[in-house]
Amino acid sequence: MSRELHAAPHVVQALGAIVGERGLLLGADMAGYEQGARYGQGQALCVVRPASVEEVQAVVRCCVAHGVPLLPQGANTGLVGASTPDASGAQVVLSTSRLRGLCDIDAANRSVTVDAGVTLQELNEKLEPHGLWFPIDLGADPTVGGMIAANTGGTRLIRYGDVRHNLLALQAVLPTPEAEVLELGRALRKDNTGPDLKQLFVGTSGAGAVITRATLEVHVRPQQSATALVVPTSDDAVLQLLQALERELGDYLSAFEGLSGHAMQAAIDHVPDLRNPFAPEPAPDFAILIELEAASSKAYTGLDLQEALNQFLQDQFEQTIENAVIGNGHELWHLRHSISEGARALGKPIAFDVSVPRSRIMAFCRAARAVVAREFPFLHVVDFGHVADGGVHFNVIWLSDAAQPYDAAVVQRLRDRIYAMVVQDYAGSYSAEHGVGPHNLAYYRRYTAPASRRLAQGLRRLTDPQQLCGTVDFGDHEAQ
Amino acid sequence: MSRELHAAPHVVQALGAIVGERGLLLGADMAGYEQGARYGQGQALCVVRPASVEEVQAVVRCCVAHGVPLLPQGANTGLVGASTPDASGAQVVLSTSRLRGLCDIDAANRSVTVDAGVTLQELNEKLEPHGLWFPIDLGADPTVGGMIAANTGGTRLIRYGDVRHNLLALQAVLPTPEAEVLELGRALRKDNTGPDLKQLFVGTSGAGAVITRATLEVHVRPQQSATALVVPTSDDAVLQLLQALERELGDYLSAFEGLSGHAMQAAIDHVPDLRNPFAPEPAPDFAILIELEAASSKAYTGLDLQEALNQFLQDQFEQTIENAVIGNGHELWHLRHSISEGARALGKPIAFDVSVPRSRIMAFCRAARAVVAREFPFLHVVDFGHVADGGVHFNVIWLSDAAQPYDAAVVQRLRDRIYAMVVQDYAGSYSAEHGVGPHNLAYYRRYTAPASRRLAQGLRRLTDPQQLCGTVDFGDHEAQ
Repeated sequence: MSRELHAAPHVVQALGAIVGERGLLLGADMAGYEQGARYGQGQALCVVRPASVEEVQAVVRCCVAHGVPLLPQGANTGLVGASTPDASGAQVVLSTSRLRGLCDIDAANRSVTVDAGVTLQELNEKLEPHGLWFPIDLGADPTVGGMIAANTGGTRLIRYGDVRHNLLALQAVLPTPEAEVLELGRALRKDNTGPDLKQLFVGTSGAGAVITRATLEVHVRPQQSATALVVPTSDDAVLQLLQALERELGDYLSAFEGLSGHAMQAAIDHVPDLRNPFAPEPAPDFAILIELEAASSKAYTGLDLQEALNQFLQDQFEQTIENAVIGNGHELWHLRHSISEGARALGKPIAFDVSVPRSRIMAFCRAARAVVAREFPFLHVVDFGHVADGGVHFNVIWLSDAAQPYDAAVVQRLRDRIYAMVVQDYAGSYSAEHGVGPHNLAYYRRYTAPASRRLAQGLRRLTDPQQLCGTVDFGDHEAQ
Repeated sequence: MSRELHAAPHVVQALGAIVGERGLLLGADMAGYEQGARYGQGQALCVVRPASVEEVQAVVRCCVAHGVPLLPQGANTGLVGASTPDASGAQVVLSTSRLRGLCDIDAANRSVTVDAGVTLQELNEKLEPHGLWFPIDLGADPTVGGMIAANTGGTRLIRYGDVRHNLLALQAVLPTPEAEVLELGRALRKDNTGPDLKQLFVGTSGAGAVITRATLEVHVRPQQSATALVVPTSDDAVLQLLQALERELGDYLSAFEGLSGHAMQAAIDHVPDLRNPFAPEPAPDFAILIELEAASSKAYTGLDLQEALNQFLQDQFEQTIENAVIGNGHELWHLRHSISEGARALGKPIAFDVSVPRSRIMAFCRAARAVVAREFPFLHVVDFGHVADGGVHFNVIWLSDAAQPYDAAVVQRLRDRIYAMVVQDYAGSYSAEHGVGPHNLAYYRRYTAPASRRLAQGLRRLTDPQQLCGTVDFGDHEAQ
């Protein structure tokens, strides 16, 4: 029996004394904390839900004193298994779900200081009366702490940036015997006073420290928006269209999402209340969802954004586009956001959250589709993505009715093949916006230079000498 | 004699063999590299100007082998003395002035990969034919490497962010025996594959590694702009006006610069060809330079930006503003950019590059002016700044004709007083955009928590075990 499990009953008791009855979950009550949103399923020693930074410190001190590993968890919506415990039964899940007392809005500074357990939706509800929002858009409702740990991007990155771009300050508890509270940064847009230490905890999947509070830059809510779903004349035309849009309407571009025909069809066929916007024609091979947003008042600009977009598209006809469905934004976004559900209905999804320089995104997608068709002809590609920021959800489905039954070894071969293309042939990333977790750690080890891994390992040891916090080890191990 | 100086002739000879005659400067030829733009003057062992990354590596290997300290230097335009050698005569200045072969533009990706020694102006000349620019605006022409080391901000941060926000990838040479080249990041907007290691070298004044190349996100050049110089009705009105602007014309706001009456008067009195834009009335106590920029085409938006601004200002009359001078942007920016020259003509400037949450910027300026008037009545405040991002150049002049002669002890007392106000009373920063160098290192030590300094020291040791690279030590020393 390991040292951790030996000490376990004592540790659980001590943790219970810190967080109280409401703050400690055991047995079946832990189920929702042990199962990941897409990958990851394990067994926790216990789940603790501290209700204050002081309680987090006490929990951390207790775990560190007993050498018990600690896994910070927000809304557990991550997609690489980094927020769920492993199978050891030794990890304490530190849920931030009760760290949500503070949401301090400074409207004139366009900033908010917020506890880590507040969710994106709650935050935006609090910001709305001030005409402000935190404009990260994605298909889940993560906590602020989780968004920082994953450096969430989403569909509107091209206009607003990712979480890192909007993070002004961070409070974190170090997994050391003292459980020191680090206060990194302030509610300032300009502050260059030495190394920016908060960066050590952004996009690191909860490794190295427990994020307890953050100060975020927030934005003015748009007053109008315009949408269209357009069919490009060719792959080359997609980039021409994007460049033309940035040149002619660049102040407003908030989304430029690529939808493959397979992706649209999967959603149309399987999601209730969703119709083919191109009906009676079938869905095309590829379409782009364009969204513009204006944070300006028509009273001063005289601008009708939908009219401007329509006129732009009219001029693009036969140059870069051959068809277009104008507006209803809600309906078009519903189609976009239904793709994952539609894909799941077809069979077992094999997800690739990759990115390439956007100048090569269409070439990559074409080449990757060809590889699947040639080498894995029994698989079905349902790709879509964020063309403007180079992100592609190159998802592949093992169809429920495939002749060949699901085979993990084949899936492994596909993953190796696609990631190698992305990283080696297209100068891209094997994890664009989902981060690194147990699900894709092998590729971190394969594609991160040894010097970088040694540096990452050194960083981890600086803040977390026993490597107790978080489930991902970014250190220098043999490539797998 | 120290080990370094003992080894010196041998090291200089070896460095000369690496970089060749053109790449090595000695004696009087080093003058421009030894004198800082505002602070810092020292003596170098020699100046080396490697012409390739391989030469940088060889220089680093040579210095590390002999334990000789190494100081990376770009255009030497920094304002805290971090790019000039100390008085020891032991440091090798590694100038990046010949690292400028590469400027590889990917227009469709809106990115550029560029050698560290290329200057901002050169970069923008290369980008212009593509309709692109790197929109950091400041009163100097730094190199790309220097801008990363300082995390340059400037006057248009509110629209485009600082250098960190626009940095996609970095190449750096580690000051280790192997002089390993780190390639950190790629030309990607979404890439979350472990800790973002390039952040370790952003805003650290050249400490820890030699930056040799970077990939930057670049932006579409605006098609039209609008400017006005307005007089607010009160301090409170300034923030109301800023918030109204962001609500009504937020897509376009690119600058919102505060100019005190003293600042305008200093420029008007001492800079040739500059007239008082309010003539025949005298310059007001305070004015705001507003700039809007649109990257959109009038053909689609129908937007006349100056007209929109004018109409907005008209509606603000008697609410938040009491006077306004419309357009000529060139003339108004000339006034703004002439303040430093005007101030220097008055006497000896004591510069404060500080920031506070912008919601408190007017209160801070008022309080700080009152402190100077009360406690240092013989000094003259010439403050101006970037209201929209909370930055203030709260500059104070020891007038040439002051009754009391310049006294370094008084200046020290003033610095302590103002920085204490900023940091302790206004939750601000003692270095907003100039970074940390020998000039203000004492305040880093005073105002950085010991836990953060220990972490910074640990970071430094990870990449630079002998602490040879750069002149700033962010480590954990006794507060001064």
